[in-house]
Amino acid sequence: MHPNGHAGPYRQGSPICPGGKRMRGLMQNWPMTLDRILAHAASTSGSRRIAMQRPDGSITASDYASLQDEAKALSAALAAYGIGLGDRIGTLLWNDLPHMTVWYGAMGIGAVVHTLNPRFDAVRLAWLINHAGDRLLVVDAQFADTLRQVADRLPTVEHIVIASGKGAALPIGTIAVSSLEDFLGAGDPSAAVWGGFDEETAAGLCYTSGTTGDPKGVLYSHRSNFLHALCSNQPNGFAIAATDVVLPIVPMFHANAWGWTYIAPMAGAGLVLPGPRLDGASLQRLIVAEGVTFAAAVPTVWQDLLRHVRETGASLGRLARVLVGGAAVPSEMVRAFREDLGIEVMHGWGMTELSPLGAISSVMPDEAALTAQEVVSRKARQGRALFPVEARIVGADDKECPHDDATPGSLQVRGPAVVRRYYGAEEDAVDAEGWFDTGDIAVIDGHGFIKLVDRAKDVVKSGGEWISSVELENHAMGCPGVRRAAVIAIPDPRWGERPLLIAECDEGDGPSDESILAHLRPLVPKYWLPERIVFASVPLGATGKIDKLALRRLFAQPLQIEAVND
Amino acid sequence: MHPNGHAGPYRQGSPICPGGKRMRGLMQNWPMTLDRILAHAASTSGSRRIAMQRPDGSITASDYASLQDEAKALSAALAAYGIGLGDRIGTLLWNDLPHMTVWYGAMGIGAVVHTLNPRFDAVRLAWLINHAGDRLLVVDAQFADTLRQVADRLPTVEHIVIASGKGAALPIGTIAVSSLEDFLGAGDPSAAVWGGFDEETAAGLCYTSGTTGDPKGVLYSHRSNFLHALCSNQPNGFAIAATDVVLPIVPMFHANAWGWTYIAPMAGAGLVLPGPRLDGASLQRLIVAEGVTFAAAVPTVWQDLLRHVRETGASLGRLARVLVGGAAVPSEMVRAFREDLGIEVMHGWGMTELSPLGAISSVMPDEAALTAQEVVSRKARQGRALFPVEARIVGADDKECPHDDATPGSLQVRGPAVVRRYYGAEEDAVDAEGWFDTGDIAVIDGHGFIKLVDRAKDVVKSGGEWISSVELENHAMGCPGVRRAAVIAIPDPRWGERPLLIAECDEGDGPSDESILAHLRPLVPKYWLPERIVFASVPLGATGKIDKLALRRLFAQPLQIEAVND
Repeated sequence: MHPNGHAGPYRQGSPICPGGKRMRGLMQNWPMTLDRILAHAASTSGSRRIAMQRPDGSITASDYASLQDEAKALSAALAAYGIGLGDRIGTLLWNDLPHMTVWYGAMGIGAVVHTLNPRFDAVRLAWLINHAGDRLLVVDAQFADTLRQVADRLPTVEHIVIASGKGAALPIGTIAVSSLEDFLGAGDPSAAVWGGFDEETAAGLCYTSGTTGDPKGVLYSHRSNFLHALCSNQPNGFAIAATDVVLPIVPMFHANAWGWTYIAPMAGAGLVLPGPRLDGASLQRLIVAEGVTFAAAVPTVWQDLLRHVRETGASLGRLARVLVGGAAVPSEMVRAFREDLGIEVMHGWGMTELSPLGAISSVMPDEAALTAQEVVSRKARQGRALFPVEARIVGADDKECPHDDATPGSLQVRGPAVVRRYYGAEEDAVDAEGWFDTGDIAVIDGHGFIKLVDRAKDVVKSGGEWISSVELENHAMGCPGVRRAAVIAIPDPRWGERPLLIAECDEGDGPSDESILAHLRPLVPKYWLPERIVFASVPLGATGKIDKLALRRLFAQPLQIEAVND
Repeated sequence: MHPNGHAGPYRQGSPICPGGKRMRGLMQNWPMTLDRILAHAASTSGSRRIAMQRPDGSITASDYASLQDEAKALSAALAAYGIGLGDRIGTLLWNDLPHMTVWYGAMGIGAVVHTLNPRFDAVRLAWLINHAGDRLLVVDAQFADTLRQVADRLPTVEHIVIASGKGAALPIGTIAVSSLEDFLGAGDPSAAVWGGFDEETAAGLCYTSGTTGDPKGVLYSHRSNFLHALCSNQPNGFAIAATDVVLPIVPMFHANAWGWTYIAPMAGAGLVLPGPRLDGASLQRLIVAEGVTFAAAVPTVWQDLLRHVRETGASLGRLARVLVGGAAVPSEMVRAFREDLGIEVMHGWGMTELSPLGAISSVMPDEAALTAQEVVSRKARQGRALFPVEARIVGADDKECPHDDATPGSLQVRGPAVVRRYYGAEEDAVDAEGWFDTGDIAVIDGHGFIKLVDRAKDVVKSGGEWISSVELENHAMGCPGVRRAAVIAIPDPRWGERPLLIAECDEGDGPSDESILAHLRPLVPKYWLPERIVFASVPLGATGKIDKLALRRLFAQPLQIEAVND
């Protein structure tokens, strides 16, 4: 021991530590469980308003302190019923107060909220409920009949709680049904204890839409949802403060409502829940009535609202910023919001597997020097990876591609809120270094702005080069007379794959092969020009997207069709 | 197995799970290590400017990509030297590029940065270096002579690196000394591997000032610093975006520079490092030259800058917001910034033990309805607990006090960046529920705004009621003729304690006991009136604060002094 101080606790024996001895910090063990978010809001912003639009368009209200009380009462009732750590609770609900109550009531005791899309048919719902193994369902009365169709095929479901909507709590098959009121009767609110489990505990289960193959479940943890909310709400991200009033139009069954169920209480922001009425006129009224400053939705919802505002000249009140995600944002939408309405547009890109946010069109230091058109173009991109999401693009050689806005690669991501393994899967969904392949092909510019150019399965790999089917389709649809265009790859002995264009044209005087090619020649590299063009109707899938699987079944046989581009 | 789906992976045996089975989420294991922050900046904002003011006032610049390269080169040199996980590296440096390089170079390989205050004397520095067990010191050349005074009393120090300043790398006692350039020569930059350890690994060590007893070390982890930065930069907190240019005037040896070494690269913000020149004129030039939008400092620095601006009429360029912390903010400073300069003031409250931020004067939804005076008053408070910090005030009965802005209690906090145990201590510094007692007495208002009323050890506990020594001192100093006032508790057989006022008055015609009491009577409750008043000089400690320990030694004996307030 030396004369003038104490030895540190990790130096033993020799006064000079030989290095390499692991030392842990001495800070608090404070698990990031989601109940703490609502507890924070109840404690520091207890009276902040939560408004809800009822199905008839009228508005009712609550606040964070009351929401916490109700969620705790539900927790007590769930615990009294025997629901606990790891039990799955399926929900068939809109964005409303009962859904928020189930959300925190279940997660607070370590149960798992499995959000189901109410628009799904009964067979698909049954598949999802069975795959998740839901013990309890909490539903809006309007979906009771749908569930009746499959009631005898839900062996894990013990009980159904009708939490909202009109309808008597009648049995569904042999499954017991109760109203939320009756179910709550069983629990003593003061008996509810939240948290106390570790932050890796599962909190939510959300299935990908599964356009190919079976849906895949993403099992979020308390930690991943907590960090996702904190990170998404960085100043470069959603940037929601206590002064905001937020309207999550994006449903809670759509990847955690992009985090809004957590971000609003975390920030102490006002929260507006729209329920099932999402038409332009209803949303416009709600936005004005509640002084909404920020709203988040998919492009189709915004199209509807913009049309309504254009047609009626109605105001959007205090609305200052909108988040558009879930699908690519048309440049015209960015322009209309910014220039016609003075509303800032944030374009977010994400996936269920990313909790969901991966990238966002944050404002860059150079933006003041850009023209309006340049800003619109930039915001129409998918945005920059938001800290701490790591994003990279990788070529066919597995090497990272440069950020030159020209070299496309497979977009891969890592982060604390990115999926590692799908629910029930035997293997991880990531590579040895932890990268999750998004299935998208992208380019990245010098500022880190990502632009998706195609789905990996749709890109045409011709002689080692990648041809974007989406871009080729967009150019082809710009050709007069072409109503809809689809591009798929067809096998080619020399190039591996070559593009086939399926063109659905106007009746009668449609364009010829040659006029389409003439239109494309100045727009794309020569090797992008379609190998063949087929005039046929382009089939759409259930979600309105081009059904490329059907097209591949029909056309991807090189010998069946005639070459046009020799 | 039922006909229409797969069993989930956690349902075994009975199709109906009996509940209570723990389920872990299936998201990525992505440790929150601090190297990822600079890696993010280098990857997405690599060319964002880092400016540094040299001691002569000239400016040099780097960027995040270069900083990462330099820090990795240092990591390689440290590893080649034999420094690794858990080794402590002491720094005696200003806020400059070498300090940032050591910061990330050491933390990236799991070594611990122990920041030392260069203003300390040699004996105190030796005590701290020995308590920490630093193996390596990285210092500015100007401190070499200070270290020479104690060179024979630093048994754990193997090597000293001169990283900045002018001076030859001469031996310090028997300790080997090299320049940073020579030290770097040993390492191969490409050999550096960052991260790969778990997030609880220690990253930094900072000692409290220790106004009573020995200094106490707070050993931060990667996780606690990472979360502190993310949380401090919420929109309700510092709210720094990529478009900001930040100037951390608060030194890196002062509780991690309040997080700025992490927040700036996390946000991709421009970073300006002021070096040792912190006078008003130098800071004003720097702020204008670099387009600083946000700066953080203690009140004395701001006083100096405000005086300079008032006297010269100089501009503060793009400066839009300032963070004031480290000591209570005078209302007049808030007013001057807001009303005279149009600059927003954020008042932050924290402690080394909190990493440091605990509360901040975030803007509330009702602020638009307040008068300018009400806003100033609110911002002069210590602010609201910033998510996820949990704060409560507790009375003498150990029960939580109401948020009525009137009932004072001991301020206690919990959170992921709050100390659990001091470095080298045998026991935790928290109670059984994890609460850390800050040693402050506070009231909290209905909006959650905290106001510190006294240090717990200074409050006078009279008949079960608490009398704020600070408030009583402030009122006494408002009495004409009183130059300085101090209040301490003296034992009282009936009330337990009663306040003694020590008044240092103007020469000659000073106020009488009775005139001071007459001044105080309308301002405080009757039981607050000093039991006795002593006219004497009020001693100040080394940091300019009233030395209450000395006063207690001198005066806290009831029989030595005469009662004035019977």
